[in-house]
Parts: sequence; C-alpha cells; structure tokens
Amino acid sequence: MVYIGVIGAGECDEQTAALAYEVGKEIALRGAVLVCGGMGGVMEAACQGCKDAGGISLGLLPGKNRQEANSFVSYALATGMGEMRNFLVVRCSDVLIAISGKYGTLSEMAIALKERKRVIALQPFWQCPGAEAAFSPREAVSKALD
Amino acid sequence: MVYIGVIGAGECDEQTAALAYEVGKEIALRGAVLVCGGMGGVMEAACQGCKDAGGISLGLLPGKNRQEANSFVSYALATGMGEMRNFLVVRCSDVLIAISGKYGTLSEMAIALKERKRVIALQPFWQCPGAEAAFSPREAVSKALD
Amino acid sequence: MVYIGVIGAGECDEQTAALAYEVGKEIALRGAVLVCGGMGGVMEAACQGCKDAGGISLGLLPGKNRQEANSFVSYALATGMGEMRNFLVVRCSDVLIAISGKYGTLSEMAIALKERKRVIALQPFWQCPGAEAAFSPREAVSKALD
Amino acid sequence: MVYIGVIGAGECDEQTAALAYEVGKEIALRGAVLVCGGMGGVMEAACQGCKDAGGISLGLLPGKNRQEANSFVSYALATGMGEMRNFLVVRCSDVLIAISGKYGTLSEMAIALKERKRVIALQPFWQCPGAEAAFSPREAVSKALD
Repeated sequence: MVYIGVIGAGECDEQTAALAYEVGKEIALRGAVLVCGGMGGVMEAACQGCKDAGGISLGLLPGKNRQEANSFVSYALATGMGEMRNFLVVRCSDVLIAISGKYGTLSEMAIALKERKRVIALQPFWQCPGAEAAFSPREAVSKALD
Repeated sequence: MVYIGVIGAGECDEQTAALAYEVGKEIALRGAVLVCGGMGGVMEAACQGCKDAGGISLGLLPGKNRQEANSFVSYALATGMGEMRNFLVVRCSDVLIAISGKYGTLSEMAIALKERKRVIALQPFWQCPGAEAAFSPREAVSKALD
Repeated sequence: MVYIGVIGAGECDEQTAALAYEVGKEIALRGAVLVCGGMGGVMEAACQGCKDAGGISLGLLPGKNRQEANSFVSYALATGMGEMRNFLVVRCSDVLIAISGKYGTLSEMAIALKERKRVIALQPFWQCPGAEAAFSPREAVSKALD
Repeated sequence: MVYIGVIGAGECDEQTAALAYEVGKEIALRGAVLVCGGMGGVMEAACQGCKDAGGISLGLLPGKNRQEANSFVSYALATGMGEMRNFLVVRCSDVLIAISGKYGTLSEMAIALKERKRVIALQPFWQCPGAEAAFSPREAVSKALD
C-alpha cells in the first residue's frame, strides 16, 4: 500500500478545494492511503474526496483533541505537537502532493525533499526547486504512484 | 469511535501474547480502534487478534521505515522519533490497556495518568498507582469502554 | 562535563524546595550542568541553588515562550512540545535526580531507566524499581557523579 | 538576552565557513546567544567564531549522543529526534540567520516564517520569499538584532 501525503493551506478558496477534492478522490480510486494534517482547507477537501470514493485517510492533528479533525478523516491522530506534526505528515508519507499553500506547505516540501521523498506540486504558490509539477489532480496522483 | 491504546513489551512469552491477542480481538468486536506502537510482542499479538476479528489497528512506529511494522497492523505510521513515539501512543488513545511490560510500559502508564487518561492494567509487571486492575481481556476492554 | 537532570513537581512545599535548592547548589559546586524542565517548584528551586553557587542550568520548557521559564534558568529552550519535552529532559541528561513528584516525574524516571540511564531518587513519592535511593542532596549528587 | 539561530549546511566550503565564523563572532560580541543544530559545516564554524569571541552557543543535536556535537558548542542537547530537531532550532530562536544551505535550511526558513519569526539570509542557495537579505556577517547580525 502506498501512503500519499496531501499538503496545503488550512484555509483555501473554492477552486483550490475542488482540486484537493479531486486529488483525494483519485488517491482512493487508485487504492492508496491519504495522509494529511487532518484540519481544514486543502486537507478537509482531500479527505472528503477520499471518503466519497470509499478510501481511507489518516489525519495527524496539531492539537490534543481528536474532535478538531475535519469530519471526513477516517482515522485521526491527536499528536499535541503543534506545527511540528508537519514533520510527521512527511515521515508517514511515501510521496507527497502539495496543493497551493504557503510557508507551512513550503516547509513540508523542503523536509520531504531533504528526506529524499518525491514532491508533486499542483498549483504551487511558490516554486520549490526539486518539486515536480503536475497540471491536474489525476496527473498529480499518477506521478505520485509512478 | 473510541481509540484504545494497548501497551506492553516488544518481546513477550506465549501466555502474555495470548492475553494480548484476546484484548485485540475484543477491541475489534466492541467496535473500537486499537492504537499501539506497531512492533512485536504484545503489540503484534494485539494487532493479530484485532485483525482476526475484522478490526482496525493503528501502529505508531519508532523508526522511519513502515516495513518494520508487524504484519497485522492495519495502518502504520513511521514517526522516526524513537521511543519518544510512546508519547504519541498515549496522546492518540482515549484510554489505555497495559499488558505486562517494564519501563517502557510504565512510562506510558505514567504519561497517560498525568494527562488524566485512564489506564487498565492486565497482569502488570509493576504496580502503578492510579491504574485500574483487570483480570481478563474481556474485563479489561469492558472497563476501558465504561 | 556531566549533565545532571533534576526532575520533580512543578509545584512543591517549602521543605521539598529546600532539598531541590541544595541539589542545584551541589551540582554547581561539583562542576556539572543542571538540566531541567525550566518551570516552577522543584525545577525553580534547583535552578536557584545552581545559580547562587555560580553554576549553569538548561531549562527545556513545554511552551513556545521563553519568558515562561523560572527566573533562575541560565539558558531556556522553548520546545513547544508540551509534556513531551519530558523526554528531552531525559535525553539531554547523563543521569537524573528525582525529587518528590508524581506521574510526570514517574514517567521521566521510567523513560530514563528504559534508556539505561541511572536515576537517583530523593524523597520519592512512589518507589520506582531500579531507581537508587539517596537520603540527602549531597549524597544524591555524589551518587549521580559516581 | 536575544537568541539568534544560525542555520545552514552540515558540510560547506571554506568561504561559507568563513562567513559563518564571522556571524558567530559577531553574535558573541553583540551579547546574544547562538542557537544551532550543533553539528558540522556552517554550525561548527559559527560555534567556533562564537567561542573565540567569548560567547555562548547552544547545539540541538539530531542524535542521542552528546559527543557528536562539534567541539566548539558551549552546551549540547542530544534530542534523539533526527532532523525533526530542526523545528526545535527554530522554536528556540528569536530570529534566524540562514547561511547558504539547501533543503534542510529552506525547511527551517519556512518554519520560522510560518511561526512569524524573522529570517536574515546571507548568501542563500535559493531565495525564500519573506526572508531579508544581508550582504555581510555584520549586517546580518545587526538586522537580526534590530
């Protein structure tokens, strides 16, 4: 089983949420597990897409309270580590898909590349050298599973 | 959904493994999620029991390599934090069942009690003040779900 | 240089604080570095004793704000990891002295013994198997430096 | 007391080491505390400069063994958290100076900016939006202390 991390902003516009939804759906359809930070925005939309397609998502929460997870996460893990849980999202993923996002996402991309994991960037806010571009949710998931 | 942590030694004798197996099975039959450290001994036996009864287990591994998980874990999370992941096992659980075990288990029991989570002790190696005793796997899981 | 961890409750009575003060002082006089959680109670008294004798203390804080450290810490590190920083206190110490304390302290003692570090217990609230007893601050520090 | 984090590659050329040495020296001369990852390259050179000017440096090591620290660190903390200790370097610093470096450094810059800490970049390998440029060690430390 491949674990695909989906990273991106905790708040996002509808167009970005739609992309994240499709990524989550595609991950489920391809039989992979979705790993994310378990909160709102890109994470929530991806978990919803994953759930709607019958897939499984794992949400690594910053806080101590599992109820803070978005309502589409299959299994939520309350790490209580604050933003340091970003590191766990990367560690628990085989490959990552970054959707939009700013500093938090950039830090995760850099950590992933440092740990020699591939990062697929869909609609990146900033370019991160070493990340591979994808131009649709399907292409992103296909590249992640290559 | 209730998340029940199962903690105990990474190596154990057959009688202890049999207890852990039954605890895992009972957790699954009662519809709870099993959280553990994902490695051998008590953790492996509990995951096997859980799997055999159709349940779900989450394994929080000390290393960075998901392949180190025992083969019965449903979803493994490679934290790369070493024994510090014991803290995450406690954080991710609503209540814990301790089966045998020595210092690692004692540390988890103490962390749980410090964070005001209940601990059910089945065949404890040492008494930990504040832990509640149980004398069978079924009683342990019933108390955990009270 | 030997790093001695001092662990104990974040709130304590005067008699316990007096013990902790003497332990901190003795650590400084013996040329060791004091490692602790940087907060109040036993930690604060130990840091004060250390400072009064011209020694150096390192405080690993649970929060993100260095101003939360007690005013006697030489160097404070704001980990933002919550109680998980207890693990760091143990990791950063070569040997530990436990003074009174309850679950938090017990968890640190167990983690230390698990990582094969020696623990000297002065006036322990609960017995922890494997910890060595000391009956005065001077004896505790002497045993720690043995 | 201001804590200035110095981040950069664990291996570097002589010209970069010379810059890091000057940054460490300047931090000491200005009375600030130097925080870093405690290992080689930029970290080692900065600690050496700091020590030569009579300053204090704190090294947050990835491993469990304090002996792995470079020989110029004043106080080494063996976190055992692997690269996750990068997060602690950021948390323990009030402001950061990035010298050269690749993905590890970029991740620390992004984490810092995410946590609303200022980052001064001296000879950056990649541009990180939001980081402030400096063109000499002295300017970097002056900006950090502004």
